[in-house]
Amino acid sequence: MHIGIDLGGTKIKIGLVNEKGCITDSISINTAASHEYETIMGDMKVAISGLLKQNSLESEDIDSIGIGVPGLVDYEKGKVIYCANLSWYDVDVSGCLEKYFNVPVYLENDATAAAYAESLFGSTKNVNSSVFLTIGTGIGGGIIINNQIIRGGHGAASEIGHMVVGENFYDCNCGRNGCFETFASATAMIKYAQHRLENPDTVSSLRDIIAQKQGGLEAKDIFDQATAGDMLAEEVVQRTAKYLAIGIANIYNILDPEIIAIGGGVSKAGKQFFDLVGAMAEKMTLSKHVKYAKIVTAELGNDAGIIGTAFLGKQA
Amino acid sequence: MHIGIDLGGTKIKIGLVNEKGCITDSISINTAASHEYETIMGDMKVAISGLLKQNSLESEDIDSIGIGVPGLVDYEKGKVIYCANLSWYDVDVSGCLEKYFNVPVYLENDATAAAYAESLFGSTKNVNSSVFLTIGTGIGGGIIINNQIIRGGHGAASEIGHMVVGENFYDCNCGRNGCFETFASATAMIKYAQHRLENPDTVSSLRDIIAQKQGGLEAKDIFDQATAGDMLAEEVVQRTAKYLAIGIANIYNILDPEIIAIGGGVSKAGKQFFDLVGAMAEKMTLSKHVKYAKIVTAELGNDAGIIGTAFLGKQA
Repeated sequence: MHIGIDLGGTKIKIGLVNEKGCITDSISINTAASHEYETIMGDMKVAISGLLKQNSLESEDIDSIGIGVPGLVDYEKGKVIYCANLSWYDVDVSGCLEKYFNVPVYLENDATAAAYAESLFGSTKNVNSSVFLTIGTGIGGGIIINNQIIRGGHGAASEIGHMVVGENFYDCNCGRNGCFETFASATAMIKYAQHRLENPDTVSSLRDIIAQKQGGLEAKDIFDQATAGDMLAEEVVQRTAKYLAIGIANIYNILDPEIIAIGGGVSKAGKQFFDLVGAMAEKMTLSKHVKYAKIVTAELGNDAGIIGTAFLGKQA
Repeated sequence: MHIGIDLGGTKIKIGLVNEKGCITDSISINTAASHEYETIMGDMKVAISGLLKQNSLESEDIDSIGIGVPGLVDYEKGKVIYCANLSWYDVDVSGCLEKYFNVPVYLENDATAAAYAESLFGSTKNVNSSVFLTIGTGIGGGIIINNQIIRGGHGAASEIGHMVVGENFYDCNCGRNGCFETFASATAMIKYAQHRLENPDTVSSLRDIIAQKQGGLEAKDIFDQATAGDMLAEEVVQRTAKYLAIGIANIYNILDPEIIAIGGGVSKAGKQFFDLVGAMAEKMTLSKHVKYAKIVTAELGNDAGIIGTAFLGKQA
């Protein structure tokens, strides 16, 4: 058995995963994000011990523990290089847990861990090279080539959401302008709709949604209103599709994977949207003589992070 | 001994390469680019035979032949998928030469072959992962990860010059708008200078250069005039540096190599220019906690293609 952990800014999800990639039991605790890392690591130890106990397992029954972190990690050293959500910098996460449980502990970027899970058990399991994009608040990425995780020389690879693809009307959280995720994430959709609605002459049903929900516009609302025929919503969807296609065509030209798998909230936008993205990306390919990657929906959903981290030992 | 061949649109350069990566003898013939591929392949056979003869070698003394092509290749099948310069599509280059010389023949994209040579004997030989950019008329790229050439699932990887990074005032040869090479190649510099000179009010010493040379402005002229204090030339250099830095920061965020090596004509722009590019790229990094790739000048110059292709057999 393996343990996989998805360490998020609000929740820590811990799963017991068998050799077939099935989560046989799991627990979720709140992340004490405002506390020091020792507190969070302490909570994690208690939760792991609890999960083992309720399954009548000892730590020697566990082959490895893996942890997915929303940030940059040094896989070799088992350290978090930097995690903005938790304000962690140079934190020895593996060392801390290894000492306690006497089990190998592996760290990985969360999107990369999900990419790895998809490549082992999900949407990309039948190919050697794939790129996984998780599109929600931002855009995370994971790259698998020759069935190996691509981490880069300093643990900073596959930050595909921060690839600059143009100039935008607002800056990215990272401080730069033009990042892919400021054009093609759920946040990007909402920001662009709000930007267009600043013009009082813009007529759109999105105004009613915002009024009804007292502000909390979501990407899903924009997709729904586009389907219902709202012109602005349709324009936002078209712009999102265009930039997703630009980002995907860039991935074609740099990595040329066999499959590009899309996860995260925006992956639920449906077949029609991804057919549009695919058709746009196809028009942007460099050579008409190459059949570039298929674009597919990821299969493992929110479990991908737990499953991927559980198997990180296989990459050691 | 190995034979490495650089198949260009105007010249075919053929070199005899020893195990240390030294070209011991070479010849160059014109490419009969307007003829059918059989003619070009015939010329190549004659030239290879001539090179062997003048070195008192038989084909059985040769371990392998490698050919670098300015286009997309299928390495496994030894076929050119597509080569715009020669109007080749689905050409079995390896099969043709293997039958004749009874020696393994390998094909590779020319920039990728140069990247491989740099990784074996040049600027990136001491690291496992590197990206090579050759910046001249366009921008070619080669990616090495874990000492392996990254070819992609369909032979279309590392076309970094066609990564879209913004919107530009002219379209790329590939038919799209915003490709990296339309912002940061020698051609891009010349086109942008000419674009700015369309305004008759723009005062610049570049006008005199164009008059003297009867039109043939070169990137070197722009660098020289910038050094001499011309405002427009300086602006072109700054814009080129900015977009080179954007492209390099994108490479940081996607691949995070240990070194980025720059070859091609623009690599001769000098230390001051690349210090500027490096400083700009450093400001664009995602995390200040990561020491991203060094930017260095490639070392093997025009020989890189011949040397890299000569050693393709090592990757088989």
